[in-house]
Amino acid sequence: MLNFDTDRFLRIQSGAIDLADGLRDAVARCLREGAQNLFFVGSGGAGILMLPAARLLQTRSTFPVHVEAPAELVAGGSVHLGPHSVVVIPSLSGTTAESVEALGYCKSRGATVITLTGHADTPLAEGADHSFVNFAEDDTSCESFYLQSLILALALMQERGEITDYDEVVADLKLLPKLLVDVKQGFEEQAERFAAQIQDEPYHIITGAGSTWAEAFYYGMCILEEMQWIRTRPVHAADFFHGTLELVEKDVSVITFKGEDDGRALVERVEAFAPRYTDKLSVFDTAAFELPGVGARTRSLISPVLLATAFERVSAHLEVKRDHPLTTRRYYKRVSY
Amino acid sequence: MLNFDTDRFLRIQSGAIDLADGLRDAVARCLREGAQNLFFVGSGGAGILMLPAARLLQTRSTFPVHVEAPAELVAGGSVHLGPHSVVVIPSLSGTTAESVEALGYCKSRGATVITLTGHADTPLAEGADHSFVNFAEDDTSCESFYLQSLILALALMQERGEITDYDEVVADLKLLPKLLVDVKQGFEEQAERFAAQIQDEPYHIITGAGSTWAEAFYYGMCILEEMQWIRTRPVHAADFFHGTLELVEKDVSVITFKGEDDGRALVERVEAFAPRYTDKLSVFDTAAFELPGVGARTRSLISPVLLATAFERVSAHLEVKRDHPLTTRRYYKRVSY
Repeated sequence: MLNFDTDRFLRIQSGAIDLADGLRDAVARCLREGAQNLFFVGSGGAGILMLPAARLLQTRSTFPVHVEAPAELVAGGSVHLGPHSVVVIPSLSGTTAESVEALGYCKSRGATVITLTGHADTPLAEGADHSFVNFAEDDTSCESFYLQSLILALALMQERGEITDYDEVVADLKLLPKLLVDVKQGFEEQAERFAAQIQDEPYHIITGAGSTWAEAFYYGMCILEEMQWIRTRPVHAADFFHGTLELVEKDVSVITFKGEDDGRALVERVEAFAPRYTDKLSVFDTAAFELPGVGARTRSLISPVLLATAFERVSAHLEVKRDHPLTTRRYYKRVSY
Repeated sequence: MLNFDTDRFLRIQSGAIDLADGLRDAVARCLREGAQNLFFVGSGGAGILMLPAARLLQTRSTFPVHVEAPAELVAGGSVHLGPHSVVVIPSLSGTTAESVEALGYCKSRGATVITLTGHADTPLAEGADHSFVNFAEDDTSCESFYLQSLILALALMQERGEITDYDEVVADLKLLPKLLVDVKQGFEEQAERFAAQIQDEPYHIITGAGSTWAEAFYYGMCILEEMQWIRTRPVHAADFFHGTLELVEKDVSVITFKGEDDGRALVERVEAFAPRYTDKLSVFDTAAFELPGVGARTRSLISPVLLATAFERVSAHLEVKRDHPLTTRRYYKRVSY
């Protein structure tokens, strides 16, 4: 595979799953100490990567869950934030300015803070009540953050008696790092073809629903926009039919991320519509990825993980074909603002 | 003013505010009958127009509030939805397919449904437990829906003892219809200039935060994309710095909506950044609109109303200058999907 280090990938994704026991212990302790609600407070992409776990809890658990952008939480506050709150702050660098500020803000309100970072010697890792560190970089952080937040959500539901299959799901997840390498390998050729196909495309509509909405949002904003400077319109498949559809015409690229959860039918509705008006519909379906030994229940929870792992391959080819390194930025961490 | 009927506008916006007593009675009755949570379940633009009220409640009230796209709620369900739920379904036409389906779904779960529509003889108005009807059309529905949902949110907080100034705010709102006409009149010339300036612009980044995020999202998706077929990237001001900023360069249009609530500083951060790299930053600040007799507290709640009323003027000029009627659609309600 192009520019891919299998051992490093296995180490990072196994590292995420190895945090399971610690995450469950932290969640159990928070509940024992009287936690009454949970906040996911991540900036930009890190925040997006929490959305599938947040949505799982918001629709399947009676535990109150809030999603806030750090900058907005600090600016506006929330009546729900207090000594009985658990706040999850993800940040790969451990230094994201708005998130560091949110850490201080949440602690000053008496909340218990869990941070998920890539580096131990950072303000977010050092300032947390419960710090979980798993080194990753931009090419590996999606799966790592999706998995950590999923495990945290499942642990919360298991501890509260809302599910009983935490152990089975986590056992499946332990198979994943190796299987994700197989997914990448099986997708490599298609990834290169797709990268070639879109390398000169100036604009994409990218959509998903359920847990795949997060990956559509993330891939559009944090990869195509941020790392490739390509105009992208991430739009939820439910919203697509209430505005953005009018932009679809013959030459417009529409990318759909289809998963194995409740959002599937919504994405299929876009898939049925788009090819009637554009010849540039690209459908990516997680059901195409074989995961021997992983049950349907676990599969239904990891659609964004599978899409992230496959599309990292697209990114790897895009940067070469477009001669535009994924690490090049005009502004981010280059100029102050 | 171009293509504007003052009497019709006054009738429609006064109609929205005249629903206040009925909305408060309905909310009070739901609470008396044991309501334990509230859902906002609107499709596309109608759903977006509920966001400021939803966010007000989610950050300022301890009453649990959920926001769900109708199609996704029906596909996936929610453990929170049941006989103790109040579900607000807005739909101007009263016929939006996904919303009609959601109405049936929510009622089958025993929820109490409040609908906000423009027409009484429609499935949504007729199927509701509490139906509120205020005729409006695309050029007037934003203010009407923002105001109705704001009143509903304030009524809920007043009934629960979380605020004490419901009457004062509603008294201010009663002044608004006439004042909004003045806002339009004062903005007309600027609106025409701005429409001329952007009439050939192929792409906009449009942003806001706090309550103005809803209007940035709405104006981008439901006006520029849907009604003018112009590519637009609505992005929350907090997210802007985590991806989309990399697309800013000399000729890229960036539109900011600045309001008078907690989101203001986040928008100002974009305003400070963008002009260093593009000469096409356009800032719209609600503080520029005079509203004699309306207090600061009320002003802090109506930023999206003011922006919607001003930007309806931009739309009126855009359709003429671009010779592209706001009512023209390629697909919406023209083809089946």
